[in-house]
Amino acid sequence: MAKIIDGKKIARDILLDLKSKVDKCDKKPGLAVILASDDDSSKLYVESKEKKSLALGYKSCIYRFDKSITQGKLIQLIHELNADKGTNAILVQLPLYKHLDAQQILELIDPRKDVDGFHPINVGKVSCGLKPYAYCCTPKGIVKLLKAYNISLAGKNVVVIGRSNIVGKPVAMLLSNENATVTLAHSKTKNLKSITKEMDIIISATGQSKLIKADMVKKGAVVIDVGITRHYNGTLSGDVDFEKVKEVAGYITPVPGGVGPMTIASLMENTYELFLEQNK
Amino acid sequence: MAKIIDGKKIARDILLDLKSKVDKCDKKPGLAVILASDDDSSKLYVESKEKKSLALGYKSCIYRFDKSITQGKLIQLIHELNADKGTNAILVQLPLYKHLDAQQILELIDPRKDVDGFHPINVGKVSCGLKPYAYCCTPKGIVKLLKAYNISLAGKNVVVIGRSNIVGKPVAMLLSNENATVTLAHSKTKNLKSITKEMDIIISATGQSKLIKADMVKKGAVVIDVGITRHYNGTLSGDVDFEKVKEVAGYITPVPGGVGPMTIASLMENTYELFLEQNK
Repeated sequence: MAKIIDGKKIARDILLDLKSKVDKCDKKPGLAVILASDDDSSKLYVESKEKKSLALGYKSCIYRFDKSITQGKLIQLIHELNADKGTNAILVQLPLYKHLDAQQILELIDPRKDVDGFHPINVGKVSCGLKPYAYCCTPKGIVKLLKAYNISLAGKNVVVIGRSNIVGKPVAMLLSNENATVTLAHSKTKNLKSITKEMDIIISATGQSKLIKADMVKKGAVVIDVGITRHYNGTLSGDVDFEKVKEVAGYITPVPGGVGPMTIASLMENTYELFLEQNK
Repeated sequence: MAKIIDGKKIARDILLDLKSKVDKCDKKPGLAVILASDDDSSKLYVESKEKKSLALGYKSCIYRFDKSITQGKLIQLIHELNADKGTNAILVQLPLYKHLDAQQILELIDPRKDVDGFHPINVGKVSCGLKPYAYCCTPKGIVKLLKAYNISLAGKNVVVIGRSNIVGKPVAMLLSNENATVTLAHSKTKNLKSITKEMDIIISATGQSKLIKADMVKKGAVVIDVGITRHYNGTLSGDVDFEKVKEVAGYITPVPGGVGPMTIASLMENTYELFLEQNK
């Protein structure tokens, strides 16, 4: 029976520690969040980020736009936020409305305020083993979770399933920098099971509900579930067939309560770190 | 018996094609090469780049420095080359003298003139699946070699051994973008043989002579050798035990005459592409 990795608890500890640091600051970190989407999940994520920001005493500002928002207006807002001294961190909640060019927007954010670590220069720095202004939130949260449970990474065989710019690719880089041997699998991978079965650590970030079955997991392996599928009845499930896989794995993250809280904790941490850096 | 991949021939074809394009241009591409090292291999590489540049009619300029060169002077040179309209491409031959900070220099090169694709913004773009100003030369050359021999990449299991910023990491990214399932192995990888034996394609870039033995290779696999070790008697050998591995592999690159010529061909191609981009 696997040990359940309690992301909620680890995230709470990070946020408590952060709160005590922020309380000592005269100025407060400023986080700008742009929501240009009517996606329900995005709205929920933004609310949750707003709540955590307020609880920490951040000056957070949410910019909500309906479908009439144009690329030009969004670009103008990014320029204003880049120039605004009270804004230390800028987050563009993805996906944007289909008529908007998200990549162009992401590349216009000042890399020093790029709280999500999505700007190519921050991505490139991580790839080169250098310190970026901010690490991508979910990958950073995953590494923190593993370290919190003293799960060593050096020399471990890890498969990351899903090669998004938000999770899969950056987490593969971070784990490689931590000396793990990383395989990046994806929708074009053949015979996924033959790969996952050999792995010490499985990180699944596909959004395909119950993709990872018990017979795909080596006994004692660490299973990190980054997927979230919302069902019509309001319940959530992950990429992993949790009930069955937990009988085989050594460690497993639940959904919800695993990686999710760590993503928000990392976002809050990144905001604070960017704030510190800009006020040195 | 493996088919020998003839990098020399493919590179020659690329250069011939390039020559005919350059001949039609009124202005010629300008390549600046900085050699601040007394490393013998680096000197040879730079000479070879100079020769190819001249053969193509490029305006190439080699800046050779002895050990008295300072970081400040090198920075000043980079600024001058960035501003110089006749210089389309800037190459800093690595490694630099030990007292110099190579990373700082690389990051000061205008990304639009970064012919090696080493600037974090170009690295990040490749990672995000976007087009960089230039792709790293060796990885680009490897993908071209594979394509020249109609070796399909989608769904193939590939191991890249060695995680340098110059070869290992960027080639892993390129191959992942080509829909291969890529494992990035390195010096901390345990039981390398158990990994390589399962792979359709092995790309070794460690500089460890004869690291890859015949019993580490699946029958029919493609073996790409990026390693170069210079022996005291003047001969070269690669990472792969060529004579024995060629009995098992389906395709294999020799050293010399495999990946090496492709690296220079890619450099010449990149110079031309940066020139075109800057003269649009």
